[in-house]
Amino acid sequence: MKKECKNSKKTFHVIFQPSGKRGEVSEGKTIIDASRELGVDIESICGGSKSCGKCKVRVEKGFFSDNGISSHPEHLSPFQDEEGKFIDAEERAEGVRLGCAAQIRGDILIFVPEQSRGERQVVRKGATDRSIILKPAVTLHVVQLSAPTFHDPLGDFDRLKKTLVQNHHLPLSMEIDYPALLKLPAVLRHGNWKVTVATWMRREIIDIKPGKVEDAYGLAVDVGTTTVAAYLCHLVSGKLIATETMMNPQVVYGEDVMSRISYVMAHPDGLEKIHGSIIEGLNGLIQTMTGGIGLSPEDILDLTMVGNTAMHHFLLKINPEYLGLAPFPPALHQSMDVKARDLGLKVHPSAYVHFLPVEAGFVGADNVGVLIAERPHRQRKKVLIIDVGTNGELVLGNNEKLISTSCATGPALEGAHITFGMRAAPGAIERIRIDPETFEVTLKIIGHDVGSTSPKNRAAKGICGSGIIDGVAELFRTGVIDASGRFSKDISSPRFRINEGRPEFVIAWKQETSIEKDITITQQDIRNVQLAKGALYTGAKLMMRRLGIEKVDKVILAGAFGSYIDPKEAMIIGMFPDCDPKQVYAVGNAAGDGARMALLNRDKRREADEIARKVEYLELTIEKEFQKEFLDAMYFPHKKDIFPHLRGIVKDQILNQ
Amino acid sequence: MKKECKNSKKTFHVIFQPSGKRGEVSEGKTIIDASRELGVDIESICGGSKSCGKCKVRVEKGFFSDNGISSHPEHLSPFQDEEGKFIDAEERAEGVRLGCAAQIRGDILIFVPEQSRGERQVVRKGATDRSIILKPAVTLHVVQLSAPTFHDPLGDFDRLKKTLVQNHHLPLSMEIDYPALLKLPAVLRHGNWKVTVATWMRREIIDIKPGKVEDAYGLAVDVGTTTVAAYLCHLVSGKLIATETMMNPQVVYGEDVMSRISYVMAHPDGLEKIHGSIIEGLNGLIQTMTGGIGLSPEDILDLTMVGNTAMHHFLLKINPEYLGLAPFPPALHQSMDVKARDLGLKVHPSAYVHFLPVEAGFVGADNVGVLIAERPHRQRKKVLIIDVGTNGELVLGNNEKLISTSCATGPALEGAHITFGMRAAPGAIERIRIDPETFEVTLKIIGHDVGSTSPKNRAAKGICGSGIIDGVAELFRTGVIDASGRFSKDISSPRFRINEGRPEFVIAWKQETSIEKDITITQQDIRNVQLAKGALYTGAKLMMRRLGIEKVDKVILAGAFGSYIDPKEAMIIGMFPDCDPKQVYAVGNAAGDGARMALLNRDKRREADEIARKVEYLELTIEKEFQKEFLDAMYFPHKKDIFPHLRGIVKDQILNQ
Repeated sequence: MKKECKNSKKTFHVIFQPSGKRGEVSEGKTIIDASRELGVDIESICGGSKSCGKCKVRVEKGFFSDNGISSHPEHLSPFQDEEGKFIDAEERAEGVRLGCAAQIRGDILIFVPEQSRGERQVVRKGATDRSIILKPAVTLHVVQLSAPTFHDPLGDFDRLKKTLVQNHHLPLSMEIDYPALLKLPAVLRHGNWKVTVATWMRREIIDIKPGKVEDAYGLAVDVGTTTVAAYLCHLVSGKLIATETMMNPQVVYGEDVMSRISYVMAHPDGLEKIHGSIIEGLNGLIQTMTGGIGLSPEDILDLTMVGNTAMHHFLLKINPEYLGLAPFPPALHQSMDVKARDLGLKVHPSAYVHFLPVEAGFVGADNVGVLIAERPHRQRKKVLIIDVGTNGELVLGNNEKLISTSCATGPALEGAHITFGMRAAPGAIERIRIDPETFEVTLKIIGHDVGSTSPKNRAAKGICGSGIIDGVAELFRTGVIDASGRFSKDISSPRFRINEGRPEFVIAWKQETSIEKDITITQQDIRNVQLAKGALYTGAKLMMRRLGIEKVDKVILAGAFGSYIDPKEAMIIGMFPDCDPKQVYAVGNAAGDGARMALLNRDKRREADEIARKVEYLELTIEKEFQKEFLDAMYFPHKKDIFPHLRGIVKDQILNQ
Repeated sequence: MKKECKNSKKTFHVIFQPSGKRGEVSEGKTIIDASRELGVDIESICGGSKSCGKCKVRVEKGFFSDNGISSHPEHLSPFQDEEGKFIDAEERAEGVRLGCAAQIRGDILIFVPEQSRGERQVVRKGATDRSIILKPAVTLHVVQLSAPTFHDPLGDFDRLKKTLVQNHHLPLSMEIDYPALLKLPAVLRHGNWKVTVATWMRREIIDIKPGKVEDAYGLAVDVGTTTVAAYLCHLVSGKLIATETMMNPQVVYGEDVMSRISYVMAHPDGLEKIHGSIIEGLNGLIQTMTGGIGLSPEDILDLTMVGNTAMHHFLLKINPEYLGLAPFPPALHQSMDVKARDLGLKVHPSAYVHFLPVEAGFVGADNVGVLIAERPHRQRKKVLIIDVGTNGELVLGNNEKLISTSCATGPALEGAHITFGMRAAPGAIERIRIDPETFEVTLKIIGHDVGSTSPKNRAAKGICGSGIIDGVAELFRTGVIDASGRFSKDISSPRFRINEGRPEFVIAWKQETSIEKDITITQQDIRNVQLAKGALYTGAKLMMRRLGIEKVDKVILAGAFGSYIDPKEAMIIGMFPDCDPKQVYAVGNAAGDGARMALLNRDKRREADEIARKVEYLELTIEKEFQKEFLDAMYFPHKKDIFPHLRGIVKDQILNQ
């Protein structure tokens, strides 16, 4: 991969994970230098003087066939004494370096840990304000007992249970979890025989504390392929106490589901690693979330988790091999309760983790989260739910019948694998409008005022998922690209240009950015969007055909950044079939909301199991029309289908109707 | 403790555990020498040439107030190179030495591990032949499934459960234990969709194996204060496959229950150690038992455990502090199921351990074992059950009412704390008959023909529990000792003599023994037996008074060596109130039998919980008459109570009637 540049200095291929940003970097540049050139944010307080230790990164070792590079610690300059102040022996053995000290001397793949990332991702998996009937699985009972005497020498647990049955109407079959039993004798006496008992599903005592306690906490977790969101809730009031997100640490093993499954199959310790990484990540997240508000991880008494089927299997450490082989059956569909301690999660030792059911090989517990949150099975209207993520999941139907499917969209709609793509962090362009006459561009940038694109405001760093949808939709709406996605040759604007033989459109000029470069949308970016939106459209179309539906009444956009997508722009590119724009809306992270609902209301868990059993799965890959439909669906908005609701929005002459 | 002997050589106090054998040993003798002088068997194949490594022992460090000695590794000669061949660094740090190499240079307490003991204990906790209705908690189901297809892509667990519910009538609420879920996908495919499922209590899948499997194993364990017995059973046929016993490794922390509780309370890591030692011991026992017949510990799918309340708490790692404080409530009475993995037991990862219920602070799960085995609650006859061990446990009553109590008997009835006491191993005198005219003695020695006391047969090594009861009973029956336990001064026999001012009776002459010493019963031995039997009698008496019973219809002797006690001899010393000798019988290790029954029949578990709740506990120590009654009960057979059934057996003039 070595190239000779004009200044005759060698360059090497550098890739940063988890962002996937990559490029050629000159020999001798530091990792911090390289990160700036490639638009990767690495924390640095001391300005590169090796004195703050904030810029720790890790070298990934080995040959990466996807990227065609061989990455080794020796491809960096030797470890310096100053680095030793911040990096202990264990970290050093793992390939940790200071970004400001290590110089590039060969091809290298660098992982930037969450804590070294310069700017935190904007919480795009925020919780939606939903009314939830409070009926948590874990409930508190304040119990006053009489002390044992020679005439009443009943054992501690038997004494407690007797009162819980008589005064709190809990069942006689009630059990106590082993760790809770161990602390019982001391707590009863410490509380002078007045204690607060936490029960799970009214059938198992999981905790006991002296005196009257009024606080209990639970955590709802949505494990996405790329992003993990966690919601810390007060189980007594139902209040959302804290929300936190992180990158899924599994991204180092592959950016999408299939590559992670392949990783597990190719490495004997692959499952252990991929499971361990998410558990370790969650433990860190939990530590941060609880610590930030004066709690400890042991205060978490209940957890619910949603995720697609692969994430679900990885979390449980179930071999995902058969998920990747036709007919893709999961190891289990129904919900599962596992003790957090058996999973290695460091929360309360007796806490359970409730995994919501999965629907099929690739329609996971996250989709079930959407269902119990949105309840299409209780409506007569025909609803299409699109959960947009690295893997697209679709549900269609109403109270009569529901079918689901999934399709590989790739990460383009999340801003990855896009030339100037970035996460939804400050500096990301999230809204784009192009004037159809002048082709001038108006931007909305995260962390900046709307429309502030003056050169004085060097704000833009890249384009996030909603921005790229907007950008492509606007290019099409204004005729810069045609229905097949190709740039029109007759556009007369300085923004349209051919760069090294490849056409592109300038979204933000160099002087409007903080990266010293024009931010563009390239032909390849448009192709990636076409592949993603084509897959989603094809899924919806084949489902409609299966149900005999001509038209959907409602489209719900769910998923990590569903709320940030402009429904109209999404329809312009043909992400889904024609629908009244008023009936297209985003529901935020419905998967996470579903997890939160199941955390706060145990009836929702039963409902999830019931609905998961009812949803019929449509396997797209075995549908005969799939290939043909997919090719047609790559067009904007579609090669043949009509979009009456786009009339007046997109010029008639460029709509194929 | 140093003494000057006549040869002016120093001697030191040496104690061997777990036997409790002790004595003065000259400076410079090896541990093996000392063990032979004191009648302790230590394995040695090479004859002391430091070449077999079989005689490993461990020095217990610290000051032992009970024994008044201070024991230190430095009280032995320095570690030799030859020892290093058999003792690794870790063992060395724990104080392990070769018995043939280490010489005594100070007071020392030495623990002889099971594997270094010269002769294995005779299995006195053998299983009794009882008819048990086979209805185990763990059952096998051979299941044939159809493979998933695109038209039937049901998940693996859901597919299995569907068939189990439809064809095997298992409940829809059936769950799967987490480790079993992890192996499920691979096993289903490896078995080509034909598998054998093991379920626990018909409500949880705990194992799955490919193809048709017809073997499943369970282990019933009776954890005594001194001896642990384990019964390996085939759960499908109900057959007893193997029986194994070992010393309870906790003996190093105290010989009786109270001293172990004190140990836990005095040491911050005491509970961890005392729990860890029994778990480690059980793991070793399980390894040995299964390995011996070509099985592995993972083949054990179910376990039941009985033990007194302290053993029960130690097994569960429950703080026993409150057991030792009035009113002595246990942490729990009812039965408890704990995953073996949570206890650290290395068996099948999904196996449960079922702890039978405990009745009260000192009437434990072992007593419940006796109850479900003997079922006094189903009889009209008034039954007295005596479970003889280091701690005596008594139950009295019938189908109308049952009460229980416990008393500290000390280990004398098990042959410990008796001058020539030993475990029931080859060489132990287990039967003693004294001719009332000549005072000549006839012996039965374990491992030798009856009556073979000729000098040619140097068989005897010591006296075990049943032997000491016989010996004391015979001394009383023949008038050698009086009702108060004192030796009669007017006995004219060379066997009766005063040794260093202390009267004793020779049971076996030096030439009949293998220890080069006369084996005697001393005045102190008799006192120890009086304390033990007096406690048992007092317990029975106060229970009878509570129930308003004048006479018991039946006496059942249970416990480790209950079967070996001669009921008539036991009545002669007044171990229990007068009863028709035909109605006094031994039932072997009924506690172990109870554990085995609960292993093989899950209904017995419910029965145990029911009966445990019904038995009323009588706390002896708060009974006003206790002290007075105890003093009277120290007499042979009793100071005041009459024993009509002893007429004709014991000379009338020495019966107080």
